[in-house]
Amino acid sequence: MASVRCADVRDIAVFSGTAHPELAAEICAHLDVPLHPVRVSRFANDCLEVQLQANCRERDVFLIQPLVPPVQENLVELLLMIDAARGASAGRITVVLPHYAYARSDKKDAPRISIGGRLVADLLTSAGADRVLAMTLHSPQVHGFFSVPVDHLHALRELADHFSRYDLGNTVVVSPDLGNAKEAAAFARRLGTPVAAGAKQRFSDDRVKISAVIGDVTDRDVIVLDDEIAKGSTVIELMEHLRELQVRSIRLACTHGLFSSDALRRLSGQEGVLEIVCTNTVPIPADKRVPKLRVLSVAPALAEAMRRIHNGESVSALFA
Amino acid sequence: MASVRCADVRDIAVFSGTAHPELAAEICAHLDVPLHPVRVSRFANDCLEVQLQANCRERDVFLIQPLVPPVQENLVELLLMIDAARGASAGRITVVLPHYAYARSDKKDAPRISIGGRLVADLLTSAGADRVLAMTLHSPQVHGFFSVPVDHLHALRELADHFSRYDLGNTVVVSPDLGNAKEAAAFARRLGTPVAAGAKQRFSDDRVKISAVIGDVTDRDVIVLDDEIAKGSTVIELMEHLRELQVRSIRLACTHGLFSSDALRRLSGQEGVLEIVCTNTVPIPADKRVPKLRVLSVAPALAEAMRRIHNGESVSALFA
Amino acid sequence: MASVRCADVRDIAVFSGTAHPELAAEICAHLDVPLHPVRVSRFANDCLEVQLQANCRERDVFLIQPLVPPVQENLVELLLMIDAARGASAGRITVVLPHYAYARSDKKDAPRISIGGRLVADLLTSAGADRVLAMTLHSPQVHGFFSVPVDHLHALRELADHFSRYDLGNTVVVSPDLGNAKEAAAFARRLGTPVAAGAKQRFSDDRVKISAVIGDVTDRDVIVLDDEIAKGSTVIELMEHLRELQVRSIRLACTHGLFSSDALRRLSGQEGVLEIVCTNTVPIPADKRVPKLRVLSVAPALAEAMRRIHNGESVSALFA
Amino acid sequence: MASVRCADVRDIAVFSGTAHPELAAEICAHLDVPLHPVRVSRFANDCLEVQLQANCRERDVFLIQPLVPPVQENLVELLLMIDAARGASAGRITVVLPHYAYARSDKKDAPRISIGGRLVADLLTSAGADRVLAMTLHSPQVHGFFSVPVDHLHALRELADHFSRYDLGNTVVVSPDLGNAKEAAAFARRLGTPVAAGAKQRFSDDRVKISAVIGDVTDRDVIVLDDEIAKGSTVIELMEHLRELQVRSIRLACTHGLFSSDALRRLSGQEGVLEIVCTNTVPIPADKRVPKLRVLSVAPALAEAMRRIHNGESVSALFA
Amino acid sequence: MASVRCADVRDIAVFSGTAHPELAAEICAHLDVPLHPVRVSRFANDCLEVQLQANCRERDVFLIQPLVPPVQENLVELLLMIDAARGASAGRITVVLPHYAYARSDKKDAPRISIGGRLVADLLTSAGADRVLAMTLHSPQVHGFFSVPVDHLHALRELADHFSRYDLGNTVVVSPDLGNAKEAAAFARRLGTPVAAGAKQRFSDDRVKISAVIGDVTDRDVIVLDDEIAKGSTVIELMEHLRELQVRSIRLACTHGLFSSDALRRLSGQEGVLEIVCTNTVPIPADKRVPKLRVLSVAPALAEAMRRIHNGESVSALFA
Amino acid sequence: MASVRCADVRDIAVFSGTAHPELAAEICAHLDVPLHPVRVSRFANDCLEVQLQANCRERDVFLIQPLVPPVQENLVELLLMIDAARGASAGRITVVLPHYAYARSDKKDAPRISIGGRLVADLLTSAGADRVLAMTLHSPQVHGFFSVPVDHLHALRELADHFSRYDLGNTVVVSPDLGNAKEAAAFARRLGTPVAAGAKQRFSDDRVKISAVIGDVTDRDVIVLDDEIAKGSTVIELMEHLRELQVRSIRLACTHGLFSSDALRRLSGQEGVLEIVCTNTVPIPADKRVPKLRVLSVAPALAEAMRRIHNGESVSALFA
Repeated sequence: MASVRCADVRDIAVFSGTAHPELAAEICAHLDVPLHPVRVSRFANDCLEVQLQANCRERDVFLIQPLVPPVQENLVELLLMIDAARGASAGRITVVLPHYAYARSDKKDAPRISIGGRLVADLLTSAGADRVLAMTLHSPQVHGFFSVPVDHLHALRELADHFSRYDLGNTVVVSPDLGNAKEAAAFARRLGTPVAAGAKQRFSDDRVKISAVIGDVTDRDVIVLDDEIAKGSTVIELMEHLRELQVRSIRLACTHGLFSSDALRRLSGQEGVLEIVCTNTVPIPADKRVPKLRVLSVAPALAEAMRRIHNGESVSALFA
Repeated sequence: MASVRCADVRDIAVFSGTAHPELAAEICAHLDVPLHPVRVSRFANDCLEVQLQANCRERDVFLIQPLVPPVQENLVELLLMIDAARGASAGRITVVLPHYAYARSDKKDAPRISIGGRLVADLLTSAGADRVLAMTLHSPQVHGFFSVPVDHLHALRELADHFSRYDLGNTVVVSPDLGNAKEAAAFARRLGTPVAAGAKQRFSDDRVKISAVIGDVTDRDVIVLDDEIAKGSTVIELMEHLRELQVRSIRLACTHGLFSSDALRRLSGQEGVLEIVCTNTVPIPADKRVPKLRVLSVAPALAEAMRRIHNGESVSALFA
Repeated sequence: MASVRCADVRDIAVFSGTAHPELAAEICAHLDVPLHPVRVSRFANDCLEVQLQANCRERDVFLIQPLVPPVQENLVELLLMIDAARGASAGRITVVLPHYAYARSDKKDAPRISIGGRLVADLLTSAGADRVLAMTLHSPQVHGFFSVPVDHLHALRELADHFSRYDLGNTVVVSPDLGNAKEAAAFARRLGTPVAAGAKQRFSDDRVKISAVIGDVTDRDVIVLDDEIAKGSTVIELMEHLRELQVRSIRLACTHGLFSSDALRRLSGQEGVLEIVCTNTVPIPADKRVPKLRVLSVAPALAEAMRRIHNGESVSALFA
Repeated sequence: MASVRCADVRDIAVFSGTAHPELAAEICAHLDVPLHPVRVSRFANDCLEVQLQANCRERDVFLIQPLVPPVQENLVELLLMIDAARGASAGRITVVLPHYAYARSDKKDAPRISIGGRLVADLLTSAGADRVLAMTLHSPQVHGFFSVPVDHLHALRELADHFSRYDLGNTVVVSPDLGNAKEAAAFARRLGTPVAAGAKQRFSDDRVKISAVIGDVTDRDVIVLDDEIAKGSTVIELMEHLRELQVRSIRLACTHGLFSSDALRRLSGQEGVLEIVCTNTVPIPADKRVPKLRVLSVAPALAEAMRRIHNGESVSALFA
Repeated sequence: MASVRCADVRDIAVFSGTAHPELAAEICAHLDVPLHPVRVSRFANDCLEVQLQANCRERDVFLIQPLVPPVQENLVELLLMIDAARGASAGRITVVLPHYAYARSDKKDAPRISIGGRLVADLLTSAGADRVLAMTLHSPQVHGFFSVPVDHLHALRELADHFSRYDLGNTVVVSPDLGNAKEAAAFARRLGTPVAAGAKQRFSDDRVKISAVIGDVTDRDVIVLDDEIAKGSTVIELMEHLRELQVRSIRLACTHGLFSSDALRRLSGQEGVLEIVCTNTVPIPADKRVPKLRVLSVAPALAEAMRRIHNGESVSALFA
Repeated sequence: MASVRCADVRDIAVFSGTAHPELAAEICAHLDVPLHPVRVSRFANDCLEVQLQANCRERDVFLIQPLVPPVQENLVELLLMIDAARGASAGRITVVLPHYAYARSDKKDAPRISIGGRLVADLLTSAGADRVLAMTLHSPQVHGFFSVPVDHLHALRELADHFSRYDLGNTVVVSPDLGNAKEAAAFARRLGTPVAAGAKQRFSDDRVKISAVIGDVTDRDVIVLDDEIAKGSTVIELMEHLRELQVRSIRLACTHGLFSSDALRRLSGQEGVLEIVCTNTVPIPADKRVPKLRVLSVAPALAEAMRRIHNGESVSALFA
């Protein structure tokens, strides 16, 4: 059951799927190890086949693949990579998941509904993953969905380093949602600011709307913090409330910048928005980027965590 | 894998552990079926042995046992009951968990720490439980810790029925914690009132304190809602803030009334507290009870859910 | 372990994913049962969520989903449907796979390569499938990749019924590949004709080419039989050899008409091709269809197999 | 997990391997059901293939096969029968094991030694057995080696009925070994007689010898009881001691009459032996039988247990 | 599957639960390694949380916890320790069980009864234990209940060393029960003495009584040997018989000195009892100890076994 | 899950069952390591017990046992060897299967039939095998039946080396069966010759006959290639056709020379047969051997593969 690592005996071998090769390359540059190529073939019947292009036997294999759109494609590719590594006698297989999209499907909030976060965790494990390195999971309970060890990094430090360059004397951190308010409170404590939160209401026609902002924001510089921004509708709705409450300025911050379709342009065009900050856990195509966007890199943190995992050192020290 | 029930063919057989026989008896009265006895022997070496005192073969067995203090004793007794039922060829084994204490251990918030909620779910499953009927789990993600089907009831309807007898025109529902604020918001919508929440701060010396109340409470009638109350320290701390903010009256409401040591007396003695309302998911000894306490019964809801499980009808209709 | 069915007690409930709703509807018409709707939601982060729109509790659930392009999308959708059915207490879950694209990944013919056929079988099982109904798997050994019972239908009867309308006195059945030659020989015996086969050669530059036709075809009416046709390159290459060997006419037959991009047009335009026959295991969009195409329906066979599975009757009688 | 039986809905189907068809036929006669044939083919490479010659789908299948010599042949044949039944969608598979030879390998009494009793139990379970019906297992702990339900019958009643026809006023029951003495004591209580036991000693050269008889036997009529007799060496050695201690007469009794090579003739020829009694859990070829041998039938008991298992009634009542 | 140890590469890390920290400290002193602290928190709702206070990553972790009263508390604490070690990426987890109370629940001697010995073994394994080091298990078959490797030590050597200081010329070893007589016979061979045993009888009212002593004890110095002594009733009952049979003196010996309530005082006060000898597998509070009690230490043996396990040397040599 | 090997730290330990000790000895000579003895005891009740006669703790254990007749005996012996190695804390267990007889049972070609190839693969894995080294499996899909890594060697190189000594200018490789024709085609490419194949037909009375030879063989030197030859009936039948087609000479080649009863003599006596070539994956008794037989050794190839597995080097390079 136990997977064992022998320092100086077993080599590291890092592979990247097609989801985010730039991040994988940056991680390998920090680790000073090669990024081995992976051949992914798509057959006429749309099936995939994966061949890892370097020897895996007895090696400490890391497979880097954020589960970002196209999620299903990237997921199956990752499962086939795990299967190939296992079949090739890898010594240990660590899946590096900079983004885990299915983490949002973490509860049964309607009858007969799937819990994708648990299901995909089981799939990764049953395909042969020995451990997982994840970043800013949607809720801390997702950790427990995996039966293999999970090292769970947060990007709050990277984000806090960025904002600490500003004068934060008049600033308040705002969570768009009560569900994420604990994370926002932790971030506010790092910055030494107060915290506030939007409260949502579910209407009979199944729409959810922000009905109020709980906490004091008037005449403040606001940093809106969320774990991820996709369509941005919630944030835009929140900003309408914030403007009604006459905030002074708005900055947006998130770990996972999913930014579907024209989200970046819409957010960037909102009155009072000074800056949009995210990390590179998710690839952002050049043609989507806007001048107000600032992308911080998590490659140093992931590389350091992988180095510690490989050497058998504590990863939790990185949480502090 | 599939567990199958055949109406009119397979009999129901209900057993109760020693944790809460009064609730089990009340459930059986609603179902109009006998509560079968269980012999629990404790040997000189402190080991337990369980014998179910009625035939289980091919029957639809329900085992009622809230995981309340002494939790470890009750857990092992329940595991042995499941094992005995499985060995006696039960047709299907449903564990009825009116309270699941380990649900609070649902995340890894420190290094090398156990996640009891997942571990105990795995133990129940590997001992042979086919399905689980639970009530007001600490977080909705706990649902996903179980690999067998879970029917998850809430007591919000019972609690709302109770409070709707009052004039709620000037009332606000307050959650002691941002983490539970979504539940409080749902309860407030049932009652047609606004919502507020306490915000906690973790200090360097590892104490956690409520630092502010987010939302408007001054001069209001307050209903404090939590999923469970044990020592009551958080609620007492919240009430200090509420009194500073000059609320008009306070009522306390929770599903699981754990009330450790003298919690009920301390809460009851707080200035401005009119009423303490909980349900009978957890047994409350007569000598702990105080005049301001009101205990609502969840036996009708659990009995109805068990009837539907037995007949293969939808349980989710009970959620509405 | 055993999954049990109780005739007249447990209802059948049929659902279809988005891969091929027409086939599912046709099957349900033959069975005279309703096809229940499935809600599939795609979130902004590209994750899927599935909700089965009818009660599953204790029912005999059939989920119809051929694994056709987009394969990864259809696979994950199917896994989520299984998960939702299991979580909703389905009595038994049968996955109906009219086409199983990953069956072609059935061996390890290069180092560090994935075996998708086994991996996907494991995924379906670990998600909760109790049994599988499949059609014309690429090789009979794929059957053994599943640890749950598989009923494996063939479409040879439907195809043979179609061709028996012609005068077959001068006909030979040709397999494009030695690997599929046994199937072709069985088909030839049904029609009372001889059999021949193409022999492939792998060149140093990794291309595979048909190097010869083994068996006598000159001046014959040829029926080319394959299990599936996707790009059609192999068949086109075979037809060049056949024309060199001066065959009289060519008809193409397969179970799974995948026909990627303009394959149908290219095949249809080949000199000497009289007819292209396939079944509806895979959906064929109207704008791809050509006049020479003839699509036979396997809905009656699948419906009959499902009826027998539901009633606990032998499916193998359908093989005869 | 749960296997469920629905009376009047699911038919019984009984098959016998080649180990002991006479016992199977006798059981079926008592149950008044047909014994279905099994085709066992042996290929040129010595592999076996099994085909059950009757429909199994959804049926309550019983497979009768004592694990007697040739044990390995009979074991693999049984595993293949289970596999075939599972693949044929049996509703439930009960393995009837009138004799379980590997039960003697139940502890690790030397380093690096196999525990065959646990291993074979795991094999039966992983091949697909849903439950087991066994008879007089070598030690009661063997029961726990199985993770599926085991009904464990004893033949003490049959043996006691036989001996109660004699005047037992001067009789003592003797166990050859302290390890089996508890069983002998239970048998003595049934007959109303005292009990005694041989004590073995292990010598440095790894031979084990009976060194003493503990308890009073002089001038008594002795019934030697063991669970099984194979070579008979221990019993012969015991009888030498008994004759030295001047017993009056000797009768031998066991459940499993394995009687290897000429054991029956050697035992029968011993001075003072009046009778050798066993049951038909193990087939005894006609040419081995001796006039002093008396074979009791366990077919009625096994048939009654199978009937109760099929009808979902308690089997433990048969223990009384 | 395989757990691997790399000498000189992986460090040892030893932790103790709260069951018997003195023994753990003594073991660590023999091994010359630190005993790392464990934080065990009990919440208001009686749930436990465990945090191992030293880095476990890739280490060879030993968790020392005898399952002694309060057994359920100690068991759940141990399971949480295993879970925490697994989640913290321990290289290998060895559970050191100086006493395994549930070993006595090793057979199904009544209908619908639990087999705790098998169940708890499964729990330890499914929580993540890689191997077990146990001492004097109640029956050798308990070994087979574990699916992970078990090293099973006996304390017969320690006990024999102690008694060999006496003149044993007139001594007989007596087992209170036929079930334990084999162990007593092995001990007698070590000491070069004869052996005798008590025979028990179960009465209709479910009481069990010693009905006779089989073997010669009159006028002898008796050593009564049992694997454990809890209430001591059986031993007291045996001594009444022994005194009737006019033995000369009595010494009591056992591995596990559980000594419930006032057992030590009662045993010590029995006429003719010279000495009570046990080992320190179970903690004995100072206020229970009596002058006639002699506690031998098994710490050297357990430490040596742990050293060999860590170094990959044979443990079975310790059996000799 | 992952099994890890640390070069220079863990020793190799090789054991052989009783199936083919000569091959094991030859392999060990090539590896320059001792072949450790195994004690196999057969009890009077025909059960086996295995004791590995050398320390296994933390070692890299290889167990050599072809599954050849008596297959069931050899299989159970191998399972017990694996169990003993696992119980003795082997670091990793690799099963070396020079011949895997059950590989022929790889599909479900009749109802209610067992798939022995999958079942036995599961048995080896569940008994504790960590990896498998196999040779010329009957079909490549058998690889996928194992859930542990399989290194799959072919003997085509050894066979080709042998035949390349002849003038192959006029030679054709013939497969007796279309099912094996791909292998024959690969062999032909190695030798630079064309390929042909026999086509079989199944008659209504269940006999299978070769009905034609597809491809040109007249006046050629023929090498008949099959994966194994047992009774030889198919080959003899093929040779009748070949002689009718007036081939010039015949040589027979196979990997696994099972040669049941008098097969070698019958084949050797066939008109036109110059040579019969096989390898030593299967033992061939001296009294069966005929002058025309030539046995090539696979010991060097297996030893080299084991060396690479032990050192963590790539085995697939041996495929080239």
